[in-house]
Formats: sequence, structure tokens, C-alpha cells
Amino acid sequence: MTTTKTGTGTSRTMKMLASSALLAASFASSALAGDIEAGKASAAICSSCHGAAGVSTMDMWPNLAGQKTVYLAKQIKAFRDGVRKDSVMNSVAIGLTDADIDNLAAYYNSLPAGGS
Amino acid sequence: MTTTKTGTGTSRTMKMLASSALLAASFASSALAGDIEAGKASAAICSSCHGAAGVSTMDMWPNLAGQKTVYLAKQIKAFRDGVRKDSVMNSVAIGLTDADIDNLAAYYNSLPAGGS
Repeated sequence: MTTTKTGTGTSRTMKMLASSALLAASFASSALAGDIEAGKASAAICSSCHGAAGVSTMDMWPNLAGQKTVYLAKQIKAFRDGVRKDSVMNSVAIGLTDADIDNLAAYYNSLPAGGS
Repeated sequence: MTTTKTGTGTSRTMKMLASSALLAASFASSALAGDIEAGKASAAICSSCHGAAGVSTMDMWPNLAGQKTVYLAKQIKAFRDGVRKDSVMNSVAIGLTDADIDNLAAYYNSLPAGGS
């Protein structure tokens, strides 16, 4: 019983460990997931081809709604860095930071696949 | 009335024209759309990464379900031809014909986006 009693040294240590773990998990999650609202705010230029709901307006452009976050971020970075070639995407991605790209990836991942 | 009567020269000509138009439309449609069933038959190797329902098993690989046909076909051809670089995709796409690729694109486009 003493180890779970509030105010003992052991319980304080356990609480601190738990808080650190939660904080670490929170940072890790935000680093992976990006900021959906920030991504939405910078997606205006994307929507002219990829659609307001992430479903493209033409058959030659991919739907982005519900696409995998890591895949999206990797591809936008590849366009920005010229590793993947596409004249339009190379131009629009060139000024993006890694954080901008993670936010965009999180935003498009959050949209319902198929625009439904 | 005579122009619509079965067996007249005019109606035979009209029927031939209609048949030709249907045949042309059928060829055009099949060239654009590919053969969904044939695509399904050759998608076994794809499904190990992109999922049986076209929804990927890992966050680094894209979902293909409901993706645009023209986009899918262009990307698989780019992987086959080495224009788009990815060691796995370059390997698995290398033996595909244009028709194989059009069939795969038609198949994945036909699957419900998000796997629902």
C-alpha cells in the first residue's frame, strides 16, 4: 500500500516518470503527425489541382485525401528537393520547410478518403 | 416511315454506322479504362505492400484504392521505365506491358477509396 500512497517519495518519482513519458510521447506524436490546422492554412495552392477536399479535379493528378502521412511527406520533400521530377510540383514545393510539409501531410491524411 | 423500315438500304447503312460508332466507343473506352478483372488477376504482388483492398499496410507506402486511373498508369510506367526511382517499384514494374499497367490502374481505381 505504501508505494501507491500519495505523497511518498516512490509515488512522486512514479508520477514524474509518468509525466516525462507523456511529454515525450506528446512530442513524438506531434513530430510525426504535423499540425493539421497549419497544414490546412497552407493548402490553398494545392487545392487548385488536388481539390478542396483532396480529391483531384483531373484524372492526371492524384487524390490526396486520406493518403498515408509518411508517404505524402516523403513525396513532397522529394519534389522540393528535385529527387522526384514534376515541373509544377517542383515549383510549388521549393519554398517549403520540413515542418510545412509535415503539416500538409497531416492535413491531407486527415481528410476522408474519396472526399466522402 | 420508309427510312426506319427494316431491310431498306438506308436503315442498313444507319445500322452499320451505329455499329461502327459503338465498336469505336468500345475500343476507346477499353483503351482508356483497362480491364479491371485482368488487373485484379495481376495485382497479387502489389497487394503485399498496397493491401488486398488497395489500402497500404504501412504508412510509408501509398494507398491505391480509388486513385485516379491516368495518374496510376503514368506512375507505374515511370517506375517501369526508371523515370521515377524506387528500388522495389522499379523491380516489380520492369516486366509490365502498357496493357498490364492500364489494367492494374483500372483495377485500383475501381476499389473504394479508403477500403470501405
